[in-house]
Amino acid sequence: MGKVAMVPPMGWNSWDCYGAAVNEEQVRANAAYMEKYLKEYGWEYVCVDIEWYQPTADSHEYHAFAKLCMDEYGRLIPAENRFPSAAGGVGFKKLADDIHAMGLKFGIHIMRGIPRQAAEQNLPVLGSDQTAAQVANAHSICAWNPDMYGCRCEDNEEGARAYYNSIFRLYAEWGVDYVKCDDIAREYPQCRREIELISEAARSCGRDIVLSLSPGPAPLEQAEHLKKYANLWRITDDFWDEWDLLKAMFERAEKWCIHAGPGHWPDADMLPVGALKQDYGAANWTKFTKDEQYTMMTLWCMMRSPLIVGAELTKNDDFTLGLLTNKEVLDIEKESFCAHPLYRTDEECVWIAPRKDGTGVYAAFFNLADAARTIAIALADWELDEYTSAKELWSGDTVSLDGGKLSRCVNPHCAAVFFLVR
Amino acid sequence: MGKVAMVPPMGWNSWDCYGAAVNEEQVRANAAYMEKYLKEYGWEYVCVDIEWYQPTADSHEYHAFAKLCMDEYGRLIPAENRFPSAAGGVGFKKLADDIHAMGLKFGIHIMRGIPRQAAEQNLPVLGSDQTAAQVANAHSICAWNPDMYGCRCEDNEEGARAYYNSIFRLYAEWGVDYVKCDDIAREYPQCRREIELISEAARSCGRDIVLSLSPGPAPLEQAEHLKKYANLWRITDDFWDEWDLLKAMFERAEKWCIHAGPGHWPDADMLPVGALKQDYGAANWTKFTKDEQYTMMTLWCMMRSPLIVGAELTKNDDFTLGLLTNKEVLDIEKESFCAHPLYRTDEECVWIAPRKDGTGVYAAFFNLADAARTIAIALADWELDEYTSAKELWSGDTVSLDGGKLSRCVNPHCAAVFFLVR
Amino acid sequence: MGKVAMVPPMGWNSWDCYGAAVNEEQVRANAAYMEKYLKEYGWEYVCVDIEWYQPTADSHEYHAFAKLCMDEYGRLIPAENRFPSAAGGVGFKKLADDIHAMGLKFGIHIMRGIPRQAAEQNLPVLGSDQTAAQVANAHSICAWNPDMYGCRCEDNEEGARAYYNSIFRLYAEWGVDYVKCDDIAREYPQCRREIELISEAARSCGRDIVLSLSPGPAPLEQAEHLKKYANLWRITDDFWDEWDLLKAMFERAEKWCIHAGPGHWPDADMLPVGALKQDYGAANWTKFTKDEQYTMMTLWCMMRSPLIVGAELTKNDDFTLGLLTNKEVLDIEKESFCAHPLYRTDEECVWIAPRKDGTGVYAAFFNLADAARTIAIALADWELDEYTSAKELWSGDTVSLDGGKLSRCVNPHCAAVFFLVR
Amino acid sequence: MGKVAMVPPMGWNSWDCYGAAVNEEQVRANAAYMEKYLKEYGWEYVCVDIEWYQPTADSHEYHAFAKLCMDEYGRLIPAENRFPSAAGGVGFKKLADDIHAMGLKFGIHIMRGIPRQAAEQNLPVLGSDQTAAQVANAHSICAWNPDMYGCRCEDNEEGARAYYNSIFRLYAEWGVDYVKCDDIAREYPQCRREIELISEAARSCGRDIVLSLSPGPAPLEQAEHLKKYANLWRITDDFWDEWDLLKAMFERAEKWCIHAGPGHWPDADMLPVGALKQDYGAANWTKFTKDEQYTMMTLWCMMRSPLIVGAELTKNDDFTLGLLTNKEVLDIEKESFCAHPLYRTDEECVWIAPRKDGTGVYAAFFNLADAARTIAIALADWELDEYTSAKELWSGDTVSLDGGKLSRCVNPHCAAVFFLVR
Repeated sequence: MGKVAMVPPMGWNSWDCYGAAVNEEQVRANAAYMEKYLKEYGWEYVCVDIEWYQPTADSHEYHAFAKLCMDEYGRLIPAENRFPSAAGGVGFKKLADDIHAMGLKFGIHIMRGIPRQAAEQNLPVLGSDQTAAQVANAHSICAWNPDMYGCRCEDNEEGARAYYNSIFRLYAEWGVDYVKCDDIAREYPQCRREIELISEAARSCGRDIVLSLSPGPAPLEQAEHLKKYANLWRITDDFWDEWDLLKAMFERAEKWCIHAGPGHWPDADMLPVGALKQDYGAANWTKFTKDEQYTMMTLWCMMRSPLIVGAELTKNDDFTLGLLTNKEVLDIEKESFCAHPLYRTDEECVWIAPRKDGTGVYAAFFNLADAARTIAIALADWELDEYTSAKELWSGDTVSLDGGKLSRCVNPHCAAVFFLVR
Repeated sequence: MGKVAMVPPMGWNSWDCYGAAVNEEQVRANAAYMEKYLKEYGWEYVCVDIEWYQPTADSHEYHAFAKLCMDEYGRLIPAENRFPSAAGGVGFKKLADDIHAMGLKFGIHIMRGIPRQAAEQNLPVLGSDQTAAQVANAHSICAWNPDMYGCRCEDNEEGARAYYNSIFRLYAEWGVDYVKCDDIAREYPQCRREIELISEAARSCGRDIVLSLSPGPAPLEQAEHLKKYANLWRITDDFWDEWDLLKAMFERAEKWCIHAGPGHWPDADMLPVGALKQDYGAANWTKFTKDEQYTMMTLWCMMRSPLIVGAELTKNDDFTLGLLTNKEVLDIEKESFCAHPLYRTDEECVWIAPRKDGTGVYAAFFNLADAARTIAIALADWELDEYTSAKELWSGDTVSLDGGKLSRCVNPHCAAVFFLVR
Repeated sequence: MGKVAMVPPMGWNSWDCYGAAVNEEQVRANAAYMEKYLKEYGWEYVCVDIEWYQPTADSHEYHAFAKLCMDEYGRLIPAENRFPSAAGGVGFKKLADDIHAMGLKFGIHIMRGIPRQAAEQNLPVLGSDQTAAQVANAHSICAWNPDMYGCRCEDNEEGARAYYNSIFRLYAEWGVDYVKCDDIAREYPQCRREIELISEAARSCGRDIVLSLSPGPAPLEQAEHLKKYANLWRITDDFWDEWDLLKAMFERAEKWCIHAGPGHWPDADMLPVGALKQDYGAANWTKFTKDEQYTMMTLWCMMRSPLIVGAELTKNDDFTLGLLTNKEVLDIEKESFCAHPLYRTDEECVWIAPRKDGTGVYAAFFNLADAARTIAIALADWELDEYTSAKELWSGDTVSLDGGKLSRCVNPHCAAVFFLVR
Repeated sequence: MGKVAMVPPMGWNSWDCYGAAVNEEQVRANAAYMEKYLKEYGWEYVCVDIEWYQPTADSHEYHAFAKLCMDEYGRLIPAENRFPSAAGGVGFKKLADDIHAMGLKFGIHIMRGIPRQAAEQNLPVLGSDQTAAQVANAHSICAWNPDMYGCRCEDNEEGARAYYNSIFRLYAEWGVDYVKCDDIAREYPQCRREIELISEAARSCGRDIVLSLSPGPAPLEQAEHLKKYANLWRITDDFWDEWDLLKAMFERAEKWCIHAGPGHWPDADMLPVGALKQDYGAANWTKFTKDEQYTMMTLWCMMRSPLIVGAELTKNDDFTLGLLTNKEVLDIEKESFCAHPLYRTDEECVWIAPRKDGTGVYAAFFNLADAARTIAIALADWELDEYTSAKELWSGDTVSLDGGKLSRCVNPHCAAVFFLVR
């Protein structure tokens, strides 16, 4: 198969705005927006998050013991009341085809494991003489979602492998390009073998599929295992529109930055911008200030995190659209490497990242304090004294390096990001 | 209701010899033996251990996703293929009646929680407008047995209480005198509320039922909660016929001894004597030496642990029967109080326990070393100098206290136990 | 040598009222009071606490690098400006003789180790060809007092033993009956060997000396080592006149009670009653209420803790003197055994202790709550139903056991203690 | 003052070969060697390690309570029997002058704190009305060296500052260029304030002094404090010539690499090459194989660790001299930045580091396995596909990048390091 995620993936996911209740109409509307306004900037993945197989899902909460839609092999299939195009047993095929026709890619969320209901009903596993009850590990459950049992990857590897192969072949038939597998990344080391079987199923299914592991935080000491078996993995628990969570990301980014590279990207989670959480009643807009959104986008780009928007895209305002379509900032994701912080205090943080082509260096200033402050670095102190000019990429300002300093007054919780050239 | 377990219970349990596979014929055979040979010494409880509701149970192992026998309210009932007298929906009523007719009492094992199958089938909970799916906590499972979900004691107390009341009323109808509730004692503090609801169900069910909690070790810091809500609770993980486990019991006994009293007894687990583990193939006899069995019986009596025999009683040899029918040793359980060790080293340990009636003191010598040794205490050093004569209770020997000493050569891993009088 | 501390020691110690600054006049005044008012009740030890060798000690604080009084062998000797009778190199001989003449016994405090100044000056060790610099462990210091280095008990046992023998022979010559050795009991396991050498020095010095180890809490897992090598050991950090500390003692007493016996007593620390902390300026009286003092005395007696008064005795009021001279309560220390709590909640606690002579049982009620409450036990529930009458020992009240109950309204933070007879 | 350690320092230290016993003749001999053979490659610091003030030091061990050489202000001065040029109270001035005359720089080792002997003698602190006894913290000692007390940086900051200023002014007068301060880096957070006072003393003493903190491992969470207050800090405990220690350095290097930069360098400790440990009797040569030495030098250069040779330089063989004088390898220390591992398994590890000038990238292959292996990376997988040629710097080999791969067979425990250009 080809290689996937050679640069950090960019896309949209339904969780932040629709929870477990997203439906086909909503997915199509967001895909259409992406095609029209975002595609040209590199945005491409359209992802349906958790419980698309649960007919009564109606919020961000889960309903224990709800009847899930399965095929005769215990493989979950879309709930037709929510995804009408799945009628006739075609699953997500029709939806994926239509999204592909827009020049976009299609992703889904799955939970580690096999449906509890498949085990109770002891359904056969496709391509195997085993049954769901033989494959399911009755003692391996998710702490927060009631749908699945983990598979017996240790003591019935053959059965577990058969089951995982069976679902990924189905996803390949549907045309899935991206699988976000949940209840697995924070769960090291118990899930180590399960990750390997899922990864092997994804890579042998006959289609290029990006494999993303959730939830976070994945343990840092598993970095090499993650790099080998996954394309993306979450480095935090669910990230939402709160400054404390954003501020805390700096430490996580710092620890993980050396592990970012083609095909393996530490993932700082979705971007909670714009319109969020439709099911919470009144229209819910991100609580992040504009300045905080600049900080988030800058950090995600400098650390080369995947960029997955959580907004209901069709409600984007001009600011939000602008945030997502600054080509020079987005270029950092593709053109830089070797990023890391120069220093980080409770008040401010500075990162640099060289261009891969040797033509310059990106430098980002983050004001973590609650008041505006001038951030300044002496170029010679950081081995940047050969650079002669700089451009700030959010504002487009040319910035002087006279006096051997790069200096900028930055709003509270805001960021500036520069490109320095010789 | 009356008070139960005012002295430490004595009886038999099917686990050590039959595992999860015990059947009615075996239970009756052991009960008949007890009636004939043991009853007069105070033995009275006949207990059916785990998975009497599982038709295909065949060993000490569990079969995930086996179909369990339940009534229409999700209450587990005996598998008729194993317990024929349960035919016609009478549950254990007939068996219990017959055991009562022998002058004995009847006990059963239960797992904390509600059957997973009841939740999947969403059965109604008797005496309530709730259903099993509402009562079951899909995230609370046992680590080693696949049958149940814990109940939602925290966020649906009404439903959980209704369910527990419904099962204990059934047990009361059957004539159950003793319930060993499993997957609950080591699981503090998560199960604290569940213990309370089970205890309240047992005490309000209309029948005196001894409530015993497993597995161990129960946490010492929960001693007062245990004393309030349970009659017995395990202080170890499963105890088997291995010297290391027996030697380790001395430390546990020492920590728990102050908490023994009427209605609340720390439980050192079953006595693995005689014939054990039928399902392991060849006739399996306890690996404990006779001397080790003296040590075990002596320690259990001195610490006033419940005495629950694990042997297939009908295969008892003379030694085993003699071990279980030494009246003077068994009297310690009923007539002593305030027991505790005087000292314990890696080689030896000495316990004392006054008679409640003030007429004397029991003293036990334990040789924990691998060679015979003379254990001796100066009576004045331990405030026992007013005693003038002693009898060793296993041998019947009169022992001199001349010279102000109590002294005895004790076999390796063996014990001696004395009654001292003024 | 004879046996010491066969019942829990009773006495007085200078720390609570005088800190490190106590002088001879003060010691003699308290001894005289003890002879006159307390001796007949069993009080006998008069103990000089820390830094009697430090000429400039003036408070409860320590002065680093003060010049200490030593003899030519690096053995600390009393500062003559504070203890004039030590003139002429006789040490505490004259003071001890005078206290013995009163029918009392004499105790001193020592720090584990050898003076840092002896090591710096490299003084010879008496009875050895080693020097202080060879015996001192330059890396073993006390965390809170600057005077000493620990001894090299592990890698120069011969020298360490010679030094400890040399100091205990000096104390024997002085007529010391009781040594409180500090910086050693909480410091297990590093100090395990040092405790052994000190114990052996005490037992071979030619005089019966009670060995008491401080500070607490000593670790419970070292109980048998403590019972073998020490007579008393602290089970808490310094105890002062605060209800929270007193309430917390119930858990400690519960864990240690089985280890109390002739020659080895868990020590709940000094009794901070009456006049305290002279050096803190204005006359300082215990902050304990009278009711709390009843609780403290009752618990200490039931658990058989040593009783060491911290008050400046000459300032005792009638209440304090009465508290210390209730013969029936003090008898519990000598005549009971096997004490332990029946139960303990956040609001109340009940202990029992049989009389060694079989004539009855002591029972203590403790109200741990902040409001008066009636504490009641059903006698049959606690195996006390054979008892027919009771006397409350603080009030002298006869208490009815009619109805099978022992019941008493107890003030907040107060205690009642009963003697029950058949 | 000027800035120091703007590139990682390179030099020699006496510890590995001479322990605490080094003398002036030895220092001068090594300096002469450095001048003649190493200076042109950037080696410049000549450092006298621990206990130059102890007249009887004779090995790698310490002698407790030895008399240390001090001036009248409690400042340690060289032992004249070991450093004859210190005669007349000039300290290290003459030696430093002579080393400066060679075009080299001079460094010394100090222990955190003030001599215990200064505190005992209560010497005055220069430039202050305080005394050593007031400045010394009698409870702050080193766990392994007996010479010093820590200073009371928290509760007598004025005195502690005065003392530290007094010693750094003395070092500045002597001409010291480099201070390795010991017993302080692993000891965070207790020593945090002491580090700050020492740093401020070093920066205000009137001379540029590199401040290096030992021992390791310094805690990673103190990285920013270290970057602010120190120039170098150890990331390991003492590093010696053992493969396990070298292999373990890869994980440490990985965690610390983002914190390397001008003026602040994580320090992997001395290079134990060539002749070591003179005092251990027979001539002692490094136990590292040649291949392991390549690995060590390559890793130290890639991570930009300081390079401080531990060998007795005058005994260098050709291999050792060659190892230390490969200009192209040593250039990595000065010309690269943003180094980090691409991946690390138990068998192999690959690092890259861009040139600061954008002209190329360094890549290092490490064979961590016990057999030779071919290490190969696909250039496109690591964003290196624009590079067209490579040179291996130890061998001088030109390496083909045809086929889009960089590949090399590497000896067991050995390394290769490449420079890639477009």
